[in-house]
Amino acid sequence: KKRCAYIANHVLFTRIIIGLIIINAILVGLETYPYFINNYSDWIYIGDTILLWIFTIEIIIRFVGSKSIKSFFKDPWNIFDFLIVSSGHVFVGTHYVTVLRILRVLRVLRAISIIPSLRKIVNALLKSIPSMGTIMLLLGIFFYIYAVIGTMLYSSIAPEYFGTLHDSLLSLFQVITLESWASGVMRPILAEDPTSWWYFVTFIVIGAFVIINLFVGVIVGNVEE
Amino acid sequence: KKRCAYIANHVLFTRIIIGLIIINAILVGLETYPYFINNYSDWIYIGDTILLWIFTIEIIIRFVGSKSIKSFFKDPWNIFDFLIVSSGHVFVGTHYVTVLRILRVLRVLRAISIIPSLRKIVNALLKSIPSMGTIMLLLGIFFYIYAVIGTMLYSSIAPEYFGTLHDSLLSLFQVITLESWASGVMRPILAEDPTSWWYFVTFIVIGAFVIINLFVGVIVGNVEE
Amino acid sequence: KKRCAYIANHVLFTRIIIGLIIINAILVGLETYPYFINNYSDWIYIGDTILLWIFTIEIIIRFVGSKSIKSFFKDPWNIFDFLIVSSGHVFVGTHYVTVLRILRVLRVLRAISIIPSLRKIVNALLKSIPSMGTIMLLLGIFFYIYAVIGTMLYSSIAPEYFGTLHDSLLSLFQVITLESWASGVMRPILAEDPTSWWYFVTFIVIGAFVIINLFVGVIVGNVEE
Amino acid sequence: KKRCAYIANHVLFTRIIIGLIIINAILVGLETYPYFINNYSDWIYIGDTILLWIFTIEIIIRFVGSKSIKSFFKDPWNIFDFLIVSSGHVFVGTHYVTVLRILRVLRVLRAISIIPSLRKIVNALLKSIPSMGTIMLLLGIFFYIYAVIGTMLYSSIAPEYFGTLHDSLLSLFQVITLESWASGVMRPILAEDPTSWWYFVTFIVIGAFVIINLFVGVIVGNVEE
Ligand code: NA
Ligand code: NA
Repeated sequence: KKRCAYIANHVLFTRIIIGLIIINAILVGLETYPYFINNYSDWIYIGDTILLWIFTIEIIIRFVGSKSIKSFFKDPWNIFDFLIVSSGHVFVGTHYVTVLRILRVLRVLRAISIIPSLRKIVNALLKSIPSMGTIMLLLGIFFYIYAVIGTMLYSSIAPEYFGTLHDSLLSLFQVITLESWASGVMRPILAEDPTSWWYFVTFIVIGAFVIINLFVGVIVGNVEE
Repeated sequence: KKRCAYIANHVLFTRIIIGLIIINAILVGLETYPYFINNYSDWIYIGDTILLWIFTIEIIIRFVGSKSIKSFFKDPWNIFDFLIVSSGHVFVGTHYVTVLRILRVLRVLRAISIIPSLRKIVNALLKSIPSMGTIMLLLGIFFYIYAVIGTMLYSSIAPEYFGTLHDSLLSLFQVITLESWASGVMRPILAEDPTSWWYFVTFIVIGAFVIINLFVGVIVGNVEE
Repeated sequence: KKRCAYIANHVLFTRIIIGLIIINAILVGLETYPYFINNYSDWIYIGDTILLWIFTIEIIIRFVGSKSIKSFFKDPWNIFDFLIVSSGHVFVGTHYVTVLRILRVLRVLRAISIIPSLRKIVNALLKSIPSMGTIMLLLGIFFYIYAVIGTMLYSSIAPEYFGTLHDSLLSLFQVITLESWASGVMRPILAEDPTSWWYFVTFIVIGAFVIINLFVGVIVGNVEE
Repeated sequence: KKRCAYIANHVLFTRIIIGLIIINAILVGLETYPYFINNYSDWIYIGDTILLWIFTIEIIIRFVGSKSIKSFFKDPWNIFDFLIVSSGHVFVGTHYVTVLRILRVLRVLRAISIIPSLRKIVNALLKSIPSMGTIMLLLGIFFYIYAVIGTMLYSSIAPEYFGTLHDSLLSLFQVITLESWASGVMRPILAEDPTSWWYFVTFIVIGAFVIINLFVGVIVGNVEE
């Protein structure tokens, strides 16, 4: 146990793991090129399997090296590492090939749990989410009301954008990012219903106002700390 | 009266109302799906009617439980609740079906008046509006002048965008959101009138400058508090 | 002279002028509708002429009422008022109908020089421009270099966007507003020259970085005051 | 040597160089117009050669006038000037005409190293880059993971946008600038794979959140100084 703790805290240990994560990242990148899949699929498969087992051993070492089971799973990043790696074993041999491939890609995220500066910045970003809770709820109510009204009024005029409630929610997300909100979404509807401009203009003005308050509020809060 | 005040301030009372608002939200959501309107329109109608009456009773309880008529209507959120609910009775039986449906949707907004944290954040957002008054007036003058000039110069070249004064105002709103301002609005006009670029470039530069000052000014003001 | 000074500083005097500016704004608005030009062109012409003469008398009163010629023209807003109104007389009877109409529209801007709160906010906005001088020069050099390179490399591939140096400058302004920069400008060029992505990506990244610094710097400076 | 130092620090010396840089800027601008290349190519060539030699002499004077070789090359702007000018000699007579022309354009950047206020502002902007290191690494990992997943899932549905890993990276850059992300990129994919919205929505929400934190963090840091 002492030996495991010693290894787990060694700088070289961390550096090797970072190196292996980079190799993992390169492998999943190569896998996207048909040339490599066709010619080196065996090598990629072997590399993936070796990496998965090394990461498994790594986590076992860190687990054995920790003070207790409780203290190990107290750190959310350890839970994250554990889930990312163990799920790689769970789906092995199943037909969920896409799931397995995505899991291999997500292993790159382990860079965040291993590199202290990255972990610190992500922790800071995650910490700022709860303070956004109320305004996110407000935004949710705002989106929901506009989506229901939009579906009610425009589902027959523009079924592509407002056909169903979930279509409307996606279209409203597109509108709030200002992407083709006029040329693509509003103007064809305006040609049928000349009063529809109020729907889009109020949505954008109110939405922009709330979202700007949301982001700036949170960020200024972060900066103050 | 005492009893009403007791009930109105009880935590359970608020929680039940929040629950009913959520049910109201789900109902108006289901109403957007043709499947539910066709098969369960009676149930939805009954649910809506029951909800409207419960909300009516709720407001009566809160009204009776308040110190005086004046103190009740002093809180703008009470006026808001009163209008949202009472208008539901006013339009019943009329042919304004769309108005009635929109009112049912707007009842979801009552979540803001009921949940304290939401009410607080919306109050803060609303409070920041008056301080935007002067710069909104400036923005209005700026939009109006550009809309009149745009209609004068381009109403015959691009009737779709600058045909009338209100068309121009809507197009300028589209331009200030930067949505297809070049590919959709300016370039076709530029093909006819090669000097028209100054109209759009000055509008965007001045407009962006004023609006950024507007938003940042207000938000920084909010943050300072 | 004393009488003029008394009139010029009277609240009622300012209020009447504001009222007349609003009437002027409504007139230029009505002029954009063919219906009014066809049926009431005489009335609009008479109204415009009366307004111009009242504004002329107003400025004469304020001029006579001021301490000296120097003190009158020391205030840039007086110069602004003088130019806007006097140019209305200069072009009367000439064939520059569009110039005359635009001058009539610009008279609405006199609202800024008359209403104190508007004048204050515009003064604050104008004051922040000189502090932007250096970064505007930097932005100018940055735009110029990219425009020259863009014209050199893509004038034959995309003459519509990069045909001449001034076309390129306008296209780069479009790109920096992120309007159709990929779908409209880059992707057709990318189809011919697969390395062109670096031109657009570096332009957007550097440009966004400089402009954000520009705006935020100035605004934070403003807020600090 | 003393004489060189005296010349190099003289105001007139700097002013002449600024003037020559402006002439250089005008020359490269004129070169983009076919009319000038066809009629005055000899003059432009002579002008360019003279300018290159004057700039060479200028740098030699400044080099001789500096305390030591080390102190001269300690200032990164001197290295920058040296590279920009010397590379102009290296490529002379070769067939890399485009490289030579781009180098001539980049000589305009020397305005930054010569004008103190520009140099100061660019130094400030460059200084803020290292503090962005960690969040840029985070952004890189985030982009890489989404690009690999995007290529895996959509390379056959939308080969234009997600055909290869580098196509995907460019498309994700387009999506994060919100340019045609829905109308151009997502909606055609959504028609084939109705679950693809989560890919784009999560990418935009997370990306916007990280980038806003990145920019605001850095800028606020700058302002604090
Ligand atoms: Na767009
Ligand atoms: Na856009």
